[in-house]
Amino acid sequence: MSRRPRAARGTGLAQRPFGQVERVYAPLCVISDDQVAAIHGAALKVLAEQGMRVLHDPARALFRAAGAEVDELIVRLDPGLVAERLATVPKRFTLEARNPAKSLKVGGGHCIYASVGGPAYVMDRAKGRRDGTFSEMVDFLRLVQALNVIHQEGGCPFEPLDLPANTRHLDIYHAQIRCLDKSWQTQTLGLARTMDGIEMAAIMLGTSPERLQDRPVLLGIINTNSPLQLDVPMAEGLICMAEHGQVNVITPFTLAGAMAPVTLAGALVLQHAEAMAGIVLTQIVRPGVPVMYGGFTSNVDMRSGSPAFGTPEYAKAAQATGQLARHIGVPFRSSNVTAANAVDAQAAWESQMALWGAVTGGAHLIEHAAGWMHGGLTASFEKLILDAEMLQMMDAWAEPMEVTPEALAVEAIAEVGPGGHFFGATQTMGRYETAFHRPMVANWDNYPNWLEKGGVAAEARAEEIWRNLLAEAEDPALDPAVDEALSAYVSRRKAEGGAPMN
Amino acid sequence: MSRRPRAARGTGLAQRPFGQVERVYAPLCVISDDQVAAIHGAALKVLAEQGMRVLHDPARALFRAAGAEVDELIVRLDPGLVAERLATVPKRFTLEARNPAKSLKVGGGHCIYASVGGPAYVMDRAKGRRDGTFSEMVDFLRLVQALNVIHQEGGCPFEPLDLPANTRHLDIYHAQIRCLDKSWQTQTLGLARTMDGIEMAAIMLGTSPERLQDRPVLLGIINTNSPLQLDVPMAEGLICMAEHGQVNVITPFTLAGAMAPVTLAGALVLQHAEAMAGIVLTQIVRPGVPVMYGGFTSNVDMRSGSPAFGTPEYAKAAQATGQLARHIGVPFRSSNVTAANAVDAQAAWESQMALWGAVTGGAHLIEHAAGWMHGGLTASFEKLILDAEMLQMMDAWAEPMEVTPEALAVEAIAEVGPGGHFFGATQTMGRYETAFHRPMVANWDNYPNWLEKGGVAAEARAEEIWRNLLAEAEDPALDPAVDEALSAYVSRRKAEGGAPMN
Repeated sequence: MSRRPRAARGTGLAQRPFGQVERVYAPLCVISDDQVAAIHGAALKVLAEQGMRVLHDPARALFRAAGAEVDELIVRLDPGLVAERLATVPKRFTLEARNPAKSLKVGGGHCIYASVGGPAYVMDRAKGRRDGTFSEMVDFLRLVQALNVIHQEGGCPFEPLDLPANTRHLDIYHAQIRCLDKSWQTQTLGLARTMDGIEMAAIMLGTSPERLQDRPVLLGIINTNSPLQLDVPMAEGLICMAEHGQVNVITPFTLAGAMAPVTLAGALVLQHAEAMAGIVLTQIVRPGVPVMYGGFTSNVDMRSGSPAFGTPEYAKAAQATGQLARHIGVPFRSSNVTAANAVDAQAAWESQMALWGAVTGGAHLIEHAAGWMHGGLTASFEKLILDAEMLQMMDAWAEPMEVTPEALAVEAIAEVGPGGHFFGATQTMGRYETAFHRPMVANWDNYPNWLEKGGVAAEARAEEIWRNLLAEAEDPALDPAVDEALSAYVSRRKAEGGAPMN
Repeated sequence: MSRRPRAARGTGLAQRPFGQVERVYAPLCVISDDQVAAIHGAALKVLAEQGMRVLHDPARALFRAAGAEVDELIVRLDPGLVAERLATVPKRFTLEARNPAKSLKVGGGHCIYASVGGPAYVMDRAKGRRDGTFSEMVDFLRLVQALNVIHQEGGCPFEPLDLPANTRHLDIYHAQIRCLDKSWQTQTLGLARTMDGIEMAAIMLGTSPERLQDRPVLLGIINTNSPLQLDVPMAEGLICMAEHGQVNVITPFTLAGAMAPVTLAGALVLQHAEAMAGIVLTQIVRPGVPVMYGGFTSNVDMRSGSPAFGTPEYAKAAQATGQLARHIGVPFRSSNVTAANAVDAQAAWESQMALWGAVTGGAHLIEHAAGWMHGGLTASFEKLILDAEMLQMMDAWAEPMEVTPEALAVEAIAEVGPGGHFFGATQTMGRYETAFHRPMVANWDNYPNWLEKGGVAAEARAEEIWRNLLAEAEDPALDPAVDEALSAYVSRRKAEGGAPMN
């Protein structure tokens, strides 16, 4: 426990402690059981008749050996094969973190909030949007570490475009390990990047890649190329992760009206078919390996063709995907998304639509839970803080109400009597400090007081918070021998040329 | 139908048509059935042992005649009496509007979205916050009429402080009838205001107050004085409304930690007790009269004592109140609330928390659904538009997914094949214009385009929308004879001195 970070460093910042709140409310269902079966059945029909185009030869060979019908690049899966392979997927598992106190439960009522992963740009209030750099990426990682409500780093918040593309991932992994004692996501684009993540995670834990096989520590996102295609880099990543017992999150990007049918049900059929194909492949590679079902169905703006996020359709699709994932017994990943250009009311309501869709849909991983902007093109420092606020609110909401005889407060009501107030009541005095959720960002001053203090709106308050947090940030202690071993690995792999460029 | 308004006047403004979307998703439950019973039981105990302090003599007499124990000002209700009176509450009813096409269903899956009611201040982007005036109130009413998603006006958006307090309500009612062919809420503070609303509603419908008795057309909010007190003006309003067959919405303002216990369960016990006392009184006055259960439990900021809204506790309390209201078979009113000072991300996330609490909690009326700011002290023109956007999103979300063989899109998926796209698919071409929700305010441009167009954030876009809507607004046609009769009524009542000042 000596490596336990001083996580609540922001002076006076109202952070909840690190931890997952176990969800006890039943998920919200937006389609009937019959409709779930209809979508599942249609997806099975697509896999049996249409099939997936699999561009990776070894992946096709694996499918063929497992009994699939392979016709040139097309792999067709019959319903029996799919059912047989889905049966070995674990419904729950634990994902190890560098700090054992920050290891994470997946499945059942447990959900992971992961920070934004993947954008090319970064932005903040002072400097606007710009290309990502390594130095700023490290800043962002330090904030991810400092924000307790974020359980997991989401696989590089934005590309450090100032580093060479073929070795960038090595510096990213090293920074993820140095800046975080939390779980972090790896990159699965091609064999080399995937294997480097596994090697470095093994060094981090003082073990070998072989010994990680029954010890899930890494989680990586696999996107199918919708419609119905699995490309070489993603197939390489998927197979390598599964072989090493690590967690693939199979996430078709089924944008209704573009890469998927214009109907939400049709987009879900396509998503479900592609997700099942990827999940089946993981179980062919290694029966029982943890895997997740990623739902990312949204819709385009039919006036412009541009993708929309945090829409009513997005929320509904997330909730329906939760139902589909439970139907096949696979943990469910969703996201916190917005297409907003400013960190304004639109950004908040789109994120809220997405978060409520995910949380009430029974998600077990919320990817991009904090920091995502511009439909995923940009990571925002201020949005990171606002999302952390919203995640803390979700956790406070998810905590079960205390309904004990004392909490029912019949005595307190009698003590105060008609027309009184509870400010000084015995029960209030005993509980007021911890009775309610405390916000980090929300301002509840009355309007004249707020104006007198400068009339600072939410985005600007978020800026102040992240600057303070960053100024106080300290990297969690890392065994120098481990750090040296990581440095040596990175140097060697850089000398070897890193990952081949596709 | 000649009085049908040209409601979708905003040129190009993406409004849904007027109408209520019938909810089919099961409500989200945050407490168990046993916990519902425990809260209900504790509330019954409070009513039986502690009782309500009822300041109005005739109200106490009504309670006494119905079998309650009256001890000076205290009225105690035994559980048998409460159950007997709750049994006559209708689970569903219809609320008539001036335009019959805009009459509203209450109960079951039907919910009313009502605009903000009650603030003293108004604000907009250009002029900031200021005292309400009659002229601006009329502007606000015209926007309420123009926004299809708002089903009902919420009882005067902000006080016209430039009019005399004793006759102001007469001008407000007249403006509500002139500017709106939608349902509008009346004021229930004291007998005179309540009776004036009923008289003017009767004139509006060409009938008499007596003939309204089985024809609910007015809805008014009754706030108990928490804890456990019913004052004279509210009791007068309640009794007068119920006598005339009109709808009381019994809404305790149980702010946990201030006027209610610091525990959420305790605040709900108090809310439930007070709500049941008010509901019982309506049924004593007129068995079978429609009445609603208003849930307004929130919490204070324990650092400052100021009220907070749209908090995690607020959302959870709304969902639990839905459970309590269903337990006793009374339609449920909730609200869209925020304590934010700016029309910013905080305003949006607090409103979203409240809206998701209300909608998934099974609300049948969302009061303050559009335009509420500053914890209810201020009505905002921009927030009105942003809330209308969020309400439209909620309606689009609530529309059941189409899961027909055609919507499952197996044929469309086969037509496009692996690696293609659906932009030009037959199914897409046939459906794209209406496939997805179209926003009024959200901007989904890519970032460079958005910047090029001026980088306008949500609040400023909302300003442009309301100014355009207002410029194009036309009052719905009103029979000149009705308008004259209303003018004559208002003149006579003003000459009589209006409502006595308490």
